[in-house]
Parts: sequence; structure tokens; C-alpha cells
Amino acid sequence: MGYRVAVAGASGYAGGELLRILAGHPGFEIGTLTAGSNAGAALGTLQPHLRSLSDRVLAETTPQTLADHDVVFLALPHGASGPLAAELGEDVLVVDCGADFRLADAAEWEHFYGSPHAGTWPYGLPELPGQREVLAGTKRIAVPGCYPTVTTLALVPAFTAGLAEPDVVVVAASGTSGAGRSPKVNLLGSEVMGAVSAYGVGGVHRHTPEMIQNLSAAAGEPVTVSFTPTLAPMSRGILATCTAKARPGTTYAALREAYLAAYAAEPFVDVLPEGMWPSTAMTLGANTALMQVALDERAGRIVITAAIDNLTKGTAGGAVQSANLALGLPEEQGLGTLAVAP
Amino acid sequence: MGYRVAVAGASGYAGGELLRILAGHPGFEIGTLTAGSNAGAALGTLQPHLRSLSDRVLAETTPQTLADHDVVFLALPHGASGPLAAELGEDVLVVDCGADFRLADAAEWEHFYGSPHAGTWPYGLPELPGQREVLAGTKRIAVPGCYPTVTTLALVPAFTAGLAEPDVVVVAASGTSGAGRSPKVNLLGSEVMGAVSAYGVGGVHRHTPEMIQNLSAAAGEPVTVSFTPTLAPMSRGILATCTAKARPGTTYAALREAYLAAYAAEPFVDVLPEGMWPSTAMTLGANTALMQVALDERAGRIVITAAIDNLTKGTAGGAVQSANLALGLPEEQGLGTLAVAP
Amino acid sequence: MGYRVAVAGASGYAGGELLRILAGHPGFEIGTLTAGSNAGAALGTLQPHLRSLSDRVLAETTPQTLADHDVVFLALPHGASGPLAAELGEDVLVVDCGADFRLADAAEWEHFYGSPHAGTWPYGLPELPGQREVLAGTKRIAVPGCYPTVTTLALVPAFTAGLAEPDVVVVAASGTSGAGRSPKVNLLGSEVMGAVSAYGVGGVHRHTPEMIQNLSAAAGEPVTVSFTPTLAPMSRGILATCTAKARPGTTYAALREAYLAAYAAEPFVDVLPEGMWPSTAMTLGANTALMQVALDERAGRIVITAAIDNLTKGTAGGAVQSANLALGLPEEQGLGTLAVAP
Amino acid sequence: MGYRVAVAGASGYAGGELLRILAGHPGFEIGTLTAGSNAGAALGTLQPHLRSLSDRVLAETTPQTLADHDVVFLALPHGASGPLAAELGEDVLVVDCGADFRLADAAEWEHFYGSPHAGTWPYGLPELPGQREVLAGTKRIAVPGCYPTVTTLALVPAFTAGLAEPDVVVVAASGTSGAGRSPKVNLLGSEVMGAVSAYGVGGVHRHTPEMIQNLSAAAGEPVTVSFTPTLAPMSRGILATCTAKARPGTTYAALREAYLAAYAAEPFVDVLPEGMWPSTAMTLGANTALMQVALDERAGRIVITAAIDNLTKGTAGGAVQSANLALGLPEEQGLGTLAVAP
Repeated sequence: MGYRVAVAGASGYAGGELLRILAGHPGFEIGTLTAGSNAGAALGTLQPHLRSLSDRVLAETTPQTLADHDVVFLALPHGASGPLAAELGEDVLVVDCGADFRLADAAEWEHFYGSPHAGTWPYGLPELPGQREVLAGTKRIAVPGCYPTVTTLALVPAFTAGLAEPDVVVVAASGTSGAGRSPKVNLLGSEVMGAVSAYGVGGVHRHTPEMIQNLSAAAGEPVTVSFTPTLAPMSRGILATCTAKARPGTTYAALREAYLAAYAAEPFVDVLPEGMWPSTAMTLGANTALMQVALDERAGRIVITAAIDNLTKGTAGGAVQSANLALGLPEEQGLGTLAVAP
Repeated sequence: MGYRVAVAGASGYAGGELLRILAGHPGFEIGTLTAGSNAGAALGTLQPHLRSLSDRVLAETTPQTLADHDVVFLALPHGASGPLAAELGEDVLVVDCGADFRLADAAEWEHFYGSPHAGTWPYGLPELPGQREVLAGTKRIAVPGCYPTVTTLALVPAFTAGLAEPDVVVVAASGTSGAGRSPKVNLLGSEVMGAVSAYGVGGVHRHTPEMIQNLSAAAGEPVTVSFTPTLAPMSRGILATCTAKARPGTTYAALREAYLAAYAAEPFVDVLPEGMWPSTAMTLGANTALMQVALDERAGRIVITAAIDNLTKGTAGGAVQSANLALGLPEEQGLGTLAVAP
Repeated sequence: MGYRVAVAGASGYAGGELLRILAGHPGFEIGTLTAGSNAGAALGTLQPHLRSLSDRVLAETTPQTLADHDVVFLALPHGASGPLAAELGEDVLVVDCGADFRLADAAEWEHFYGSPHAGTWPYGLPELPGQREVLAGTKRIAVPGCYPTVTTLALVPAFTAGLAEPDVVVVAASGTSGAGRSPKVNLLGSEVMGAVSAYGVGGVHRHTPEMIQNLSAAAGEPVTVSFTPTLAPMSRGILATCTAKARPGTTYAALREAYLAAYAAEPFVDVLPEGMWPSTAMTLGANTALMQVALDERAGRIVITAAIDNLTKGTAGGAVQSANLALGLPEEQGLGTLAVAP
Repeated sequence: MGYRVAVAGASGYAGGELLRILAGHPGFEIGTLTAGSNAGAALGTLQPHLRSLSDRVLAETTPQTLADHDVVFLALPHGASGPLAAELGEDVLVVDCGADFRLADAAEWEHFYGSPHAGTWPYGLPELPGQREVLAGTKRIAVPGCYPTVTTLALVPAFTAGLAEPDVVVVAASGTSGAGRSPKVNLLGSEVMGAVSAYGVGGVHRHTPEMIQNLSAAAGEPVTVSFTPTLAPMSRGILATCTAKARPGTTYAALREAYLAAYAAEPFVDVLPEGMWPSTAMTLGANTALMQVALDERAGRIVITAAIDNLTKGTAGGAVQSANLALGLPEEQGLGTLAVAP
């Protein structure tokens, strides 16, 4: 039978990916699906790729429609989760795919999001040291942002191994699904096909403080992060180029060894064999993060390139992975490592 | 443990998709993988999206390396399956994803393929009337071509219901994976991105006689088929526009009813609700065929638009579906209906 | 100095392409640019690829703002040109890129467009027999639709040479710019990338009566046209597969000769050498229509595949070509035959 | 009549773009075109988008076939230009689009290219301070690499204004045409569509020393450059994210002013208005470099994002711009600033 699960925000991209995963997960039974302006519609008209759920009718997103479930996934615009979560039972597992509960620092939240801080929940990135213990049995999970997921996985081993200075530059290319499903001229196919474009330049992207939070915790000191996101002509995927100044004496052998050791036992993170480089195509629809390690001795920088599917490991897959841990299910249940390629 | 399976041609696109499906299939255990010029390489260097199989080393494609398996999938260039299959045991289930055994008419084979006809095997399209009985227990399966799969599913109900004249025009757009993985200038990303192009125009594409064979059988009389394939800037998917002259008196209601009746019980074929039109995006990585029905009364033609993933329902998924039937496994086992979108 | 030109609808895709061409045209001087909701904005914020016109501010689209020009190009939504054109002077050359004045048959207009017929203007397809004489000196031009442009060019020679029966099936793939710049969910990059989809199936697309009008005129009898448009993952381009039943006795040699003769003197239409097939990539940004000829003897059909850039030869380039003729300028002035590829 | 021009390597992407530009250049007359393995073919079979040059037959690339021209453009694989150029007359303008003569430091050349250094020619980036004087009247031009073109333009003003520390991190996304036209599996459309991938990571890309050379000259001290290229699913275009540590006291106002001043008079370089960010789509087929300026005060880094078309400003357009200067023609002749979009 499995845990009964509700998904709020089922008509968006994150909601759709949650449903794709949950429909194949033996530990869950899909209950109520909700939406905002799409409430009342059949899911098949909005997510026609989810054939087995076509006839499900979307309810409105309210505490009442979401009641009577063991697990509630929230895939809502930033700021919507806070008030809603406050009305969901404390014995219900609430997994927020939005940003509301990711940041520990209220001032940072208010600076970047311009609204009062809703609080801080256990952070759903199981690969962080000690984080599986934090997530076991929790009733509240803040799913990391897509960019922080991949950049944190890419850089934490260098910091925990003491190989990196706290001087980080990250440039990432994301597929357009990361920008959501609201129709905007700049997201039209005619505009994005054949084009890579910049946005959120100069440290203003809202995922920046989340990266700083994660990397500073790993480094044990404040880390500066220059983060530039770009939009690439593909629907899904993030390729992040993550560089940090190398500590004096850092060798390539030590760097590679640190990463192999950090991720040897991880089911969803792979350090690629030497000579191979990550591509987002290797991760499409899979819950994997793939990376490669380089040391640029002339420039004195560690360069980690890493790929994820922003909707899977970067959002919905990561959410289910953490939910599995919270519920005591096998961490890998319902999650795949085989991508759809080519 | 499941049936022990070998895949010949594991480094190509069809082979990769077979492995993606087989790795998640509870009834199969993946045995030997073989390749031609890539023999000796680790699968991870060639199919890096298949993480759990990365360490498998490819053997050469010979009768000896393929021996000692319950099932052998052949994903080889046209013409290679015939001689190889002759050396595989009669008690082994051999599933040929190539063209060698699809056509019943040796003259047609020789006209289109220019080599001696290897024979005719049971045709792996379970949705054809009576075909499940043919496939049950068989030891040899000829998997349909990708274009014939979608066009046959799209047009057979109109013929079996007596609504169509034997005058068919089909134009289909395919993703580039249908053209295989051999490097050619005209298949470079720089050439195909941003471009739709024609090829195989004028009745010369090798899938044409297969369509004629299938539709003539359904019509009970010879059907003429004008087939034009085109190449679209996407990796996967086929959208086929399939038209046939309407018999006098054909109504839209009768047409729609014929299709709903034909596919009501089919697990992998869906007639979309009125007002929705198929997109290849609805089928990515799923074993589904989605279609919509229209009657153009002015032009006097039935127009069926249909979408599949050429590598899944169009090749590897269809192959596994038929293999399930041959082995007495549940037909849907290991096959999904949820596509990866957006 | 050149003729003074206004462009109404300068913020859309057709308007942008008009400006790209007009800015390099030695016979024109760009005057007022207008828009609807974007009035007041600088062009550079809306069409940032047109660097030399960045500082132009858009006026509102009214008869007053468009007055005092020698030529007015209208790139407006269907239905908007009629009332506006009535208020522009009779001595001004008005070139309508919309549909309002394309159809001769008022009943057909009302059936497909659902509004009163505004009238019929000289049809801006100079390659039609006798059409250059019609366009010379005219003060009103109805620019053909993008699909009718390519399908008419592709099929008229077969009809004028008496080689085709009046039984036509056309399937065309268009880039998404043909659907305009208004933001809609189904046109988002996330939805269209990696996807070919059907729309307007069953004879309901508004370009169908225009094709019937053109082909019937060439055939000298009513032609039935089954037309199916599809959307392909590219910004620009149309590849049309145009088939007609062959008259008995039609030979490939006669067919090819008819096309070579028809287009030998045309500056913008090329019949490709045998063995080459058109691709939209060969036409990007150029005012060319490229086609190839085939006769499928088994199916008894003529198959012409043809490519254009929907915004250039299919709209703005065709508009300028006809305007050149109307004004007595060299027909090719300001128009290129070199595409941007790869 | 114009200068008589030969193009060696006319069958590749750079050669095709050179021809597209030269065919519309009033100061040049296109003479001999040459190729390697494609010698003997008609250009139309290889570059079918260049309609007016279709019938040109490609000669072999030899000093003899290239003799008797005023200008020779070399678009050859790295290492091929050196020996060939030595046999071309000293009074002929030779413009090398390859790398052979770009680097001043022979040791750097040998380290990155693994072959003897051919020499150093005047560097074809007219926007560098004092470079127009160097190029005027020269008979030899080394066209910059595509990545160095955009990164040099993006960062030089910060260094010349004394606002940047010599600590640079660049991550750039390139379209696949930058990887050339030789067929390789990893460049197949099936592999690159839907995918962003890393390559040449860790300071090993051959354009790195060229960036260091240019930026160090501007800074007046050695600059370290961490450069990571990535491949994006588009045919053309580079978006470069160029960051440098800000000198203490650097303000946004000073930074923006430095860039506006540096490029106010440049015909092909634009600093976008505040609030707009560059996209490769704004440069397709145009000889422009578009950029935006940001100061990330928290991270202490200047961030310049910049876009070019790698084949136009990044190769062929830049080559013609410098050739114009060398020949005393107007610098902008034959070069456009209007891109093809969408």
C-alpha cells in the first residue's frame, strides 16, 4: 500500500517530475494532487506525458485538500510554502521543494527574497557529512535548490579535505525548465533555441547565499562565492563549472583521492574515470550527479565540472531521496541511475 | 534470477536503450554485451548514462560469445542478423531489432535491401490483430522498424473498420538517433540543429515495403503508400502524419469510435482526448504510442497524427514487449508509460 | 535618400525581420516604427539583435503615426490590417503581412477567420505566372502566408505542366517563430525543445483555403488539399512535403524538366541538383525557396520537398520582394540568397 | 572590381562563413577556392546555403592554386598555415584564421601545440589599444581564436583602467561549429542536442595562452587565467562569463564608465544598457560583440558576460575587419551588425 502522498503544485515542472518518480515508487501511493489556477483540470491536459495519471483531477492547494496524507510534497512558488506548512500536521512529513526553509540566516533570507524568514528545516542533501542522521525520522525537509545541489556536491570534498581556499567562482548552464512553466517572452522556444544567455549576474541570484552557507560549513570559515547562472537551449540539466583557489601544496593526486574517497559509497554521485567529462545528457531523468576533477596548476585553481538533471537530482529526485531517509525506506527506492540518452 | 540475456550491438543507440530497459526489468539478468569495433571497451566509456553497467566490458559479436543465454537481442546493422541468428540455438529466444526478418516477400526484400532474403520471423507488433497468439512461445521475433511501428498503429484501425481507401500518404519527422551512431557530416550537431531536412524521398526508404505489408494485410487488399521521412532537430522521437482517403460515408464519429475500440484495452497505445494533439515529448523514454484522429471532410481524407519514441516503442521497448509475450512474462513488465518531460 | 518606410508591428517576429532587411536595403529609409502594448519602448529592448536601430522609440499603431510615409508595412495580428489600411492614403504603398486581403472568396474568409471579409489585394508571390505584371505599380499588396508560399511554389509547376491530378496532401514542419511572440505555455522552450508536435490537423488551419486558391488557379480546376502543419524544435524555417497524385503517363524526366523550366530564371527559387535534398538550414535568413523533385511510381505520386525561412521568403523577404516590384526597384534589391549556416 | 581573394579551406565552417561575408563585400572579388579531401567537388554540394557560389569547383590547397590573388584567407587546421604561408608572396595579404601565428612566445606555442613555432604575425583584434596602427598596411594577419576574441574584449578595459587584479576565471559556452566539421561521435546531433558538456578542463585548452598573452599585455603584469570551455546545444555562438578579482576601491560606476569609454567609438562592440544581458542570439551572423558589466561586491569580483558569433566576429568577420584595415578599406565594409533572430 505504501505511504499516502499528496503533491501540491502538480501542474508545474517540479510537480510533474515528482509524480513521474512517485508513480514508480513502491513505497508510496499517490493521493491528492493540487494546483493554483489549474485546479479543476485533469492532469492529462497539463502533464500529458504521465499517462497512468491522466484522469486525476487537480484540487485547489489548501490545508484541507492536503490533509489526511502521510507525506506532502510542496512544489510551489517561493514564499507559498511557509504559511501552508504551518497548517499541516506535525506528524506529517512535509517536503518543501521551494526555498522557504533552506537558509539558516534570516537576514540573508530577507536580503535575497525580500520577505520575512519562515524558518529553517533540515536540509535535504544526504551526501553532506552527517546529514543522513539529521534527516532520519524528520518531519520537515527543505529540498536544496538545483544550483546549490550540484555546486555543493562539487566543492565540499575539496573543502573538507583542506585543499581549497575560500575563494570560489561558479558558472553554471541550466536548461530552461529551471525557470518554470509561467509563460514569458524570454522563455519562448523561439528565443531560447540556438541561444545561451546570461541572467542573475553579479551575485544577485537567490541561490548564492545557499551555496555560501553550504560551502562555509564545509570549509569551517566564510567562503566567498561568485556565482553566474546562464540559460542553455535544452529543457533539462545543469552543467556547473566550479572552481576554487587551491591551497598551496595541493596536488592532483590528493585532490582526486579526496573525491574518490568522499563519494565511493554514494549511490547517486559518481566521479568519472579520468579522461571523461560530464555532460548533462548522462543524467537526464536520473537521480545522479556526475563530476570530474582537475587541478590547473598554472592558474592555481581546482576545477570541478559537474552535471545533474535539475528536475531530478536537483529537485524531485533529491526530494524523494531525502523523504526515503526520513521515512526509514531504502534511500535508493524509486530512484534511478540510468539516464535517458541519447 | 530471471532469464539470462545477451545484447549484441551494445554500443549503439538501440543497444543502449535495450540495456536501459533490461537493467530495470525484474524478469531478466543481463549477461554478455557485445560490439563490433568497440569490443574490449568498458560500456561506461560508450554509454556513460548507464551508470550501473559502467564496468561491463564488451565482447566481440560472435555465436560463441552469445551462447549460453536464454535470450539474445540483436541490435546490429541490417544484414548482420541473418548469418548470426543461424548459429544461435533453436531453443534460444532471438529478438532481431534489425530488418533482416521483417518482410515476407523475398522480392521486396531484395529490391529494397539488395541482398538475399534471410527469411521471415514472427512480427513483433503485439497490437496487430491476432499477433499476441503468434508471439506466445515463439523463439524468433522480428522487431518492426520505427516508422512502420508508428504508421501501422496509426492506420490499421481505419482499415480494419473499413473506413479507408487503400491510398495512403505518410510524412514523418524523426529524431536523429534513428540514423544511428556512425559519425557522418550530415548528422553533426552543427548541421542538424535548427534544421528540418528531407531524405529518402519518392518511395525509396526501406521501411516503405514494411508499411505496405502491414497495411495491406489489414485492408485485405493492396495498399499504396507514399512515404516521406524527414529529420528533425531532436535526438529521439517520431511524429507521423498518416493520411488515407476516406471511404464514402465515413463519419468522424465512426472513425473515432473505431480507434477508441481498437485501443481501449491496449496498455501502450492511447487515443488522446479530443482537442489534444500528440507531441514526441509525451513519449520520451516511454513505451507508448499516442495518437489523435481527424477527418478532413473537404479533402476527403482521414488524418491520424501519432507519436512514439523511436528508440523505445519504436525499437527496444517494442522488442522487450514482444519478448515478454514470447517468454510468458507479463506483457508490460519492465516497460513504462511515463515519459520524461519537459 | 530612398522611399520612406513605416513598419507597424515592429516588436514582433515578422516586424523584426522586416527591419533587418529594410536596414540593409539601399532603396528605403526607415521612418516610424509602431507597436501595440510595446509602444513607448526603445526597439533595442525588444529586438536587441538589431543594433543599429536600438535607440528607435516605438510609436502607437495609428493612421496618424503611419502617415507621411511612401510605404507602410503592416505586421499585425490577423484582422487588424483591414480597418487600418482603409485610413492610409491611396497613394501610399501598403504591404500587409497579415491574412486580411489574401483570399478572393469572402465565404472562405468568413469560414476560416470568423469575421467579415476586408477585401482582396494583389497577391505578393511574384513567381506565380503573370504576377509580376499584377504587382508592378500596385499600391496594395497582400503578402502570402508562410505555408502557402512554400507549398504554392512547390506545386504550381506540376499543375501548370499538366502532370498532377487535383489531389494534394501537404505536411509541413515549421519553426516556432511562425506561432508568433505572444507568451504561451505550449510555446515555451521547455515544451518545444526536443519535440515535434501536431496542430491544426484535419483541414482547419487557416492557410488551407489560400493553398486551395493558388493551386486551383494553376490547375484550372478545383484542387483538394489535405494540409497538416507540425511544429519543430527550431526558431525558423519550414520544410514542406508536398505530394500530388501523378497524371497517368507522367515521367520523372518530364517532371524534373517542368520544374527546371519553371524556375530557371527565378532569382529566389532553386531546384536542387539531383541527389541533394532541401534543409531549412540552407535558407536561414535568405529569401530563397529550395526544392527537390521526386516521382514515386509505385504510389503514383509526385513528391516535392521544399524549404524556406518562414520569416524571410515566407514573410518579410517576400514582402520586400513584392514591394520592390510595386515601386519599380530591382526585384532582388536588399534581398540575399546566402543563408547563415551552420 | 575589388581585390581578388582566395579562400583556402572553403569546405569547412570558417571557410563557409568567410565566403558568406566576402560574397557581399563590395571591395572583394572571390577568386580561387580550395579544399583538402573535398578538392574537385562543387561548392554547392558542401555549402548548399551559399546559393550564388554553388557552381564553384574547389581546387587543391597548394601555393600554386593560391597564387595570383591580392588576398589569401587561410581557414585550415592548426599547423597547416605555417608552411603554406611561407610560399605565398610577401606582397600578398595573407590572413590566417588558424592558430599558427597568434602567440609571441615560442615556448608557449610548443607547450600547447606540440610542434615548432612558425612565427608571430600582427594580431587581428583592432579593438586592442594601438592595434589599428599595427594592422594598417600589414601583409600578414593572425586572426585571434574565437574564445580569446570574446574574453579579451570582455576584460581588457578592466585591466587598462586599473580596476582588476591579475586573477581571472573564465567559463565559456560555445556552439558546436567551434569544434569543426570533421565527423566525430561526440559531435553528432544525437549526442549534443539537449546537452551541455565540459571539455578541455584544467587549463589545457589551446586558447588559454592566447588569453594570458592578451590580458597580461593590457594589465602590464602577468595575469593568471583559469579557463573552462563547454559545449552547448547550438550551432553557433559563444557566451563567455569573464571574472576578475576587483582591485580594492573599485566601484560599479567606475567599472561601467571604463567600459562605456573603451567602446564608445567601436563599431562592433556594444556595452548593453543596464538591465539587459547578452545572449548569443543577439549576434547570430553579425560581427558584433555584446557585453554587460557587473560588480559582485560580496565576492569582490568583476563579472563581464559577453556574446559573439564564433564564426563571425570570432573568426571570419574578425578576419575581414582586419583585412579591411590592412588594405585601407573602410573597417566596417561588408560587415553587418544586424543579427538573424529569432
